[in-house]
Amino acid sequence: MGQDNFTRQKRFLTGGGGGLPINNYDAAGGGRNRGFPGMPRGRQMHKRFNNMKITILCGFVTILVLRGTIGVGNLGSSEEEAVNQHLIEETNRILAEIRSDSDPTDPDGAAETELNPNVTYTLGPKISDWDQQRKVWLSENPGFPNFANGKALILLVTGSPPKPCDNPIGDHYLLKAIKNKIDYCRLHGIEIVYNMAHLDKELAGYWAKLPLIRMLMLSHPELEWIWWMDSDAFFTDMVFEIPLSKYDNYNLVIHGYPDLLFQQKSWIALNTGSFLFRNCQWSLDLLDAWAPMGPKGPIRDEAGKVLTANLKGRPAFEADDQSALIYLLLSQKDQWMDKVFVENQYYLHGYWAGLVDRYEEMMEKYHPGLGDERWPFVTHFVGCKPCGSYGDYSVDRCLRSMQRAFNFADNQVLKLYGYRHRGLLGPNIKRIRDDTTTPLEIVDQLDIRRSVNGKTESKS
Amino acid sequence: MGQDNFTRQKRFLTGGGGGLPINNYDAAGGGRNRGFPGMPRGRQMHKRFNNMKITILCGFVTILVLRGTIGVGNLGSSEEEAVNQHLIEETNRILAEIRSDSDPTDPDGAAETELNPNVTYTLGPKISDWDQQRKVWLSENPGFPNFANGKALILLVTGSPPKPCDNPIGDHYLLKAIKNKIDYCRLHGIEIVYNMAHLDKELAGYWAKLPLIRMLMLSHPELEWIWWMDSDAFFTDMVFEIPLSKYDNYNLVIHGYPDLLFQQKSWIALNTGSFLFRNCQWSLDLLDAWAPMGPKGPIRDEAGKVLTANLKGRPAFEADDQSALIYLLLSQKDQWMDKVFVENQYYLHGYWAGLVDRYEEMMEKYHPGLGDERWPFVTHFVGCKPCGSYGDYSVDRCLRSMQRAFNFADNQVLKLYGYRHRGLLGPNIKRIRDDTTTPLEIVDQLDIRRSVNGKTESKS
Repeated sequence: MGQDNFTRQKRFLTGGGGGLPINNYDAAGGGRNRGFPGMPRGRQMHKRFNNMKITILCGFVTILVLRGTIGVGNLGSSEEEAVNQHLIEETNRILAEIRSDSDPTDPDGAAETELNPNVTYTLGPKISDWDQQRKVWLSENPGFPNFANGKALILLVTGSPPKPCDNPIGDHYLLKAIKNKIDYCRLHGIEIVYNMAHLDKELAGYWAKLPLIRMLMLSHPELEWIWWMDSDAFFTDMVFEIPLSKYDNYNLVIHGYPDLLFQQKSWIALNTGSFLFRNCQWSLDLLDAWAPMGPKGPIRDEAGKVLTANLKGRPAFEADDQSALIYLLLSQKDQWMDKVFVENQYYLHGYWAGLVDRYEEMMEKYHPGLGDERWPFVTHFVGCKPCGSYGDYSVDRCLRSMQRAFNFADNQVLKLYGYRHRGLLGPNIKRIRDDTTTPLEIVDQLDIRRSVNGKTESKS
Repeated sequence: MGQDNFTRQKRFLTGGGGGLPINNYDAAGGGRNRGFPGMPRGRQMHKRFNNMKITILCGFVTILVLRGTIGVGNLGSSEEEAVNQHLIEETNRILAEIRSDSDPTDPDGAAETELNPNVTYTLGPKISDWDQQRKVWLSENPGFPNFANGKALILLVTGSPPKPCDNPIGDHYLLKAIKNKIDYCRLHGIEIVYNMAHLDKELAGYWAKLPLIRMLMLSHPELEWIWWMDSDAFFTDMVFEIPLSKYDNYNLVIHGYPDLLFQQKSWIALNTGSFLFRNCQWSLDLLDAWAPMGPKGPIRDEAGKVLTANLKGRPAFEADDQSALIYLLLSQKDQWMDKVFVENQYYLHGYWAGLVDRYEEMMEKYHPGLGDERWPFVTHFVGCKPCGSYGDYSVDRCLRSMQRAFNFADNQVLKLYGYRHRGLLGPNIKRIRDDTTTPLEIVDQLDIRRSVNGKTESKS
């Protein structure tokens, strides 16, 4: 490692899991990117403005024709054209306003806090007695226990940006993804928080989960586990249940491979698209140690270079939360790893590309409840980015695959009701069981919650 | 009423709440509309195809420029142009495939059942002992009680079509609407089912809720109430709780006005955008009596004429579920009304146009928990149709208003976490409380669930 790398690394790590020392940092100033995931600003603003004008213009025609396509009135009348034109103007004007950062009715348009380069970034005031605070609170609030039906309380946290997706189909798949999560969580007694707020302008994008997790831990002491799940991850095993008792002595459960982590130092050794944090002091400390590479701009850019230099296979780009966590756990292994469970016995995160084409084979040979390569617990569409425009895979392949995962999961929910999808791609469903005047016989056999509570496997 | 009307009406009602007698019916045949809400087919197919070609063509340019707008590479290189072109082709091809009804991998593309005009349409086999079946089941399954924490079990049911919205912004507001419902239901211990399946091709569109409600009742005997809520309705009072004990002697709770119903016979006397059905025999019977006007095509068209002729202010269009219910309850008043609670003490359904402009005034003068015109429980965007293209109001006004309702509600959720939106239109939030090392003091004061359970009002 050259001196340059060493100096950079030292900036991001401190001995006691504290913050990022940036006193010596020569902040570039200016040109700092703000706003949500990766949108360029500054010198590209002019280009962006011109492109937006063209977009709006073509959007006119698109909406006009769409309206004509599904309309029931006569096309071509001048009155209808005037109405269409008005519709188009209104839609685009309000879309532009929603997309913009400014709220004309709100005088406080500026960012809430300016990052002071001479002060180490922190997620919030340091709390050192969270275990004690929580313990006292739980004892004083028996109406809010941290267990229910013999299970520790889990909160599933996910989210997406508050603005419409750049690719319109993205919002449709965000909707399908949350419907999918609603189904799983209903069957397993898990509550959901869907976040659409920018809690911290510095930790935007994939880093946004850190302040969110911290906030939820501190506001919901009754929760034993906070489970972060990306918006592009789908539950595909509706029966499988996380074996929580396996993690009694751990505070972080994350999918990954120890050899990839410790031997290869690979940047994909762990996946932060689906992981669980125990609500405890240790987790607060880890979040504090994790956050310093996150603040957008020069800090995140520089941190990215450190990560690329030290993690195998990592491309050159700004620091992402996953690489930063891997780097942290490698660098401070003795401090953290005894409480980290690197799980790969089931697909807490299942990389989609190796799974989605095998769903028919799975349906033929196996059954829900396995959670592993035979019937993946979670299928995660890493790299697809349906909400944006620059995924790593073809749009066609991604959309088809997400639709297949959705249907594959939905079949498991519809089964109780006597339906299934005709195929894995289309929306249509068909009956798999005649309607009956005694529906409760079926309910006893098929309700997933009964098999989960009774700890018996349900056959597909 | 002329003889013509009388004959039509007689077709749709039977004395005992049975089905629709269509033996004398001269079914028009052909031209029956199938598929989801109001998309014209048949003779408009050719027009539609041409319009779709134009749409795709302009969609090319739109996506191309969008990609250029948010891209980070150089615009104009031939390689980039080729990639863009490919992206465009893929997106449109898969979108077209998803939108179409046919699944190329699935041989069974046809509708599942053909409606026989000589047989009265029914939702399913007639069940006559549902109260008894349910009672026995509950006694045999103490692990699935119909009460929890002293409250009867409620399931909130909502949904949207399985295909992307024609207006792209529609999916974004469907997403915001379900996030809003997730928040309310989490705070009040209510489970959610988000339906995206066409259970019954005959009862498509607004009628789809009927087979859905029936299916859920019969599959979930532990549920005491099924609460249908439209996808365009937002919770705007996060504290207010439905006073269930008020309805101990009722089986249907629906927002409306008795004078509009009985004196004026108005087609908007009740609103089926938000109502509760008790899970019992009476409800199954009402659903059976309600459904016959629903089957799409000549039946629904003819039924529409009856409804327009008999309900004040109703425009001429096919039968909708709301008008049909009003007509049924008027025509068979003695049979049903003793178990129907027409509620208007709070906004179980709150018509948006009179509410959304007063949110700032409400925040100034009142507080959550009131549920009425001072702080509406539900704000329902009747007529906006953000998923389609032909709403009854301007797109601008609708989108702004929905965003305001969303933020107004979100503020009540964010309060616990120490944030609020800067204004009611934009996405940005700001801190309203300093972060602290003792967060649990605030939690005790602000967690809505604590005020709900302790039956104290929470001040805004």
